[in-house]
Amino acid sequence: MKNVVLLGSTGSIGTSTIKVADDLPDRIRLIGLAAGNNLELLMEQYRRHQPMALSISDPEKATLAQGMVGATTAVYSGNEGLLKLATMPEADIVLIAIVGTAGLQPALAAIRAGKDIAVASKEILVMAGEIVMNEARKYGVRVLAVDSEHSAIFQCLDDKPGQSVRNLWLTASGGPFRKTPKEEFEAITVERALKHPSWVMGRKITIDSATLFNKGLEMIEARWLFDVEMDRVKVVVHPQSVIHSMVEFVDGSIIAQISTPDMCLPIQYALMYPERVKSERVQTNLAQIGSLTFEEPDVERFPSINLARRAGEVGGTLPAVLNAANEVAVDAFVNRKISFLQITELVRHTMDRHEVVTHPTLEQILEADTWAREEAMAWKRP
Amino acid sequence: MKNVVLLGSTGSIGTSTIKVADDLPDRIRLIGLAAGNNLELLMEQYRRHQPMALSISDPEKATLAQGMVGATTAVYSGNEGLLKLATMPEADIVLIAIVGTAGLQPALAAIRAGKDIAVASKEILVMAGEIVMNEARKYGVRVLAVDSEHSAIFQCLDDKPGQSVRNLWLTASGGPFRKTPKEEFEAITVERALKHPSWVMGRKITIDSATLFNKGLEMIEARWLFDVEMDRVKVVVHPQSVIHSMVEFVDGSIIAQISTPDMCLPIQYALMYPERVKSERVQTNLAQIGSLTFEEPDVERFPSINLARRAGEVGGTLPAVLNAANEVAVDAFVNRKISFLQITELVRHTMDRHEVVTHPTLEQILEADTWAREEAMAWKRP
Repeated sequence: MKNVVLLGSTGSIGTSTIKVADDLPDRIRLIGLAAGNNLELLMEQYRRHQPMALSISDPEKATLAQGMVGATTAVYSGNEGLLKLATMPEADIVLIAIVGTAGLQPALAAIRAGKDIAVASKEILVMAGEIVMNEARKYGVRVLAVDSEHSAIFQCLDDKPGQSVRNLWLTASGGPFRKTPKEEFEAITVERALKHPSWVMGRKITIDSATLFNKGLEMIEARWLFDVEMDRVKVVVHPQSVIHSMVEFVDGSIIAQISTPDMCLPIQYALMYPERVKSERVQTNLAQIGSLTFEEPDVERFPSINLARRAGEVGGTLPAVLNAANEVAVDAFVNRKISFLQITELVRHTMDRHEVVTHPTLEQILEADTWAREEAMAWKRP
Repeated sequence: MKNVVLLGSTGSIGTSTIKVADDLPDRIRLIGLAAGNNLELLMEQYRRHQPMALSISDPEKATLAQGMVGATTAVYSGNEGLLKLATMPEADIVLIAIVGTAGLQPALAAIRAGKDIAVASKEILVMAGEIVMNEARKYGVRVLAVDSEHSAIFQCLDDKPGQSVRNLWLTASGGPFRKTPKEEFEAITVERALKHPSWVMGRKITIDSATLFNKGLEMIEARWLFDVEMDRVKVVVHPQSVIHSMVEFVDGSIIAQISTPDMCLPIQYALMYPERVKSERVQTNLAQIGSLTFEEPDVERFPSINLARRAGEVGGTLPAVLNAANEVAVDAFVNRKISFLQITELVRHTMDRHEVVTHPTLEQILEADTWAREEAMAWKRP
């Protein structure tokens, strides 16, 4: 039985994690659930899984929740609540599925409390990959990937040493504009950008997969998670999203992970690692799928790939700046303040103006994040 | 440094093994080489690799060889020579790349001498899989696969327990008649059957890959090598031969091994296992390959798949009978005595008439082999 704390239980990854826990009542015990704002769904999850502790951002909602669950269940709120749950003495593993920088402190707190962490929030490794992985080594805990690409690499790598890797290959769906000619990019609307071919996701991540910044962020994550230099992290476009990523070993053999897209699979793998537990949820029929195709990513139309490569190579505070500037840019695009092409322009502009701090502290990273947001928001489109 | 004995050094797998040894002079020492008839090539290999012992089938050629190499190198001949080399005290691993039943006794002798064996001869596991794997368990040695499909499964499985496997997926090129309509099968000529789309191989194996008996034999091999029941060994047609095979785990995740076809890769993997040693020989560019396709195998046009499944399910002496009858049938086809369709008919006929011995001894297996050959040769086409 694994005692699992789930931070971000009412989001997309959170609700998939609840499904996995529903599938495996004898293997997974949800002992802590933290939600953002959805009190109703949190209460529903509470009634079914009877966790020992709850947390919700808003203190008033926490008071309401406390009234509903009675005194035997602890109810926390805010960042303090996340830290409380992340360090619960009973926890074996903490799954962090909170969007944005809010997951960073709880991730480090969990590691320092000796917990394995499963990471679904890109920001944790993009912004603070060096710190997080160093702390994990120091405390002897695992950092497990929950998104499909890094889970695939983790499954293919299977604890082989870094020196046995020639390249890591992240697959990219290519997004909705894979075949759109460069001259049409200026006219891309928010509506068109919000349609993703393979996965149903939130707005931010959907735009990121249209610009391929999504893949860029994953490249940086992979660099830290698997301890390989940036030039060994490659991207190949694979529109069917059936091969989730690959490891090319030094002997030329490529090991790939394949399945129909279902987030429950990587979530279960992370929570049950190293055991593969039976589940009928995912069934993949390659003969039915028929064809898997591959293309080089077009870095002319998708300069995000090279921006991310540069951020990952330079390291320090630059990946945090890329991440923050991209968040501001996506927000501005969704709110029709900038064009699709200007997302990348704005990120590049912010990165260009940043004075990188190497081997930064967490504070310096958060400062760079704040700086980048201000810088990006102040950007006047040329 | 691994001390390797190579039985069948002048054949296709043998010469590829020599290439691998050439690539890794600091890691592989060829201490014994056994050839069939090609004395000239054996001598060339001897001069380059200076093995401690040689063997060649014909005693007269052995005498010739002894004269050339001098008294410090042992030269043997015949089956006795194979047994001598297979049990050399200095050997760490014995690679058996001899066609036909001749590899069976040396394989068992090597196992009983405590050597790991690498198996490139289908007959060893098809005919005597149960005995070979039981002996390997008893003597605590490994049986490593050298053909591309089983090496792929071995790489994907990576020592995971059998209970974590939902299905093993052998990929099949589909052979030259993948798209040939059923009504044209009667007219298939030897010339057409000898053209294979992906691999350049010997005549027997090329015909086997046209009938898909090749895949059928591999299904039986996989059943023993990886200790899974026959109904968990599946086949999918994949004409590009880039995914070499796959393991579908109980959680629905599929792990696949990918590379451009080159026998040096599985040979090196088997010899260096568990280490992946750097080699630039194999480079795979999926974006360049572009597309990987998959189809269900058509068991109407290729009944060999179901015959092999039946042989693997029934077990005992039946796989040996299938193998022997198929060898006779291929020979008869190549010599234009029977038609392409009659290859399968002849195998089925022989299997139908066989009285299966369950858990047979090696003697009973060899008796079944002899019986099947006689029975098949006596077949009068209806």
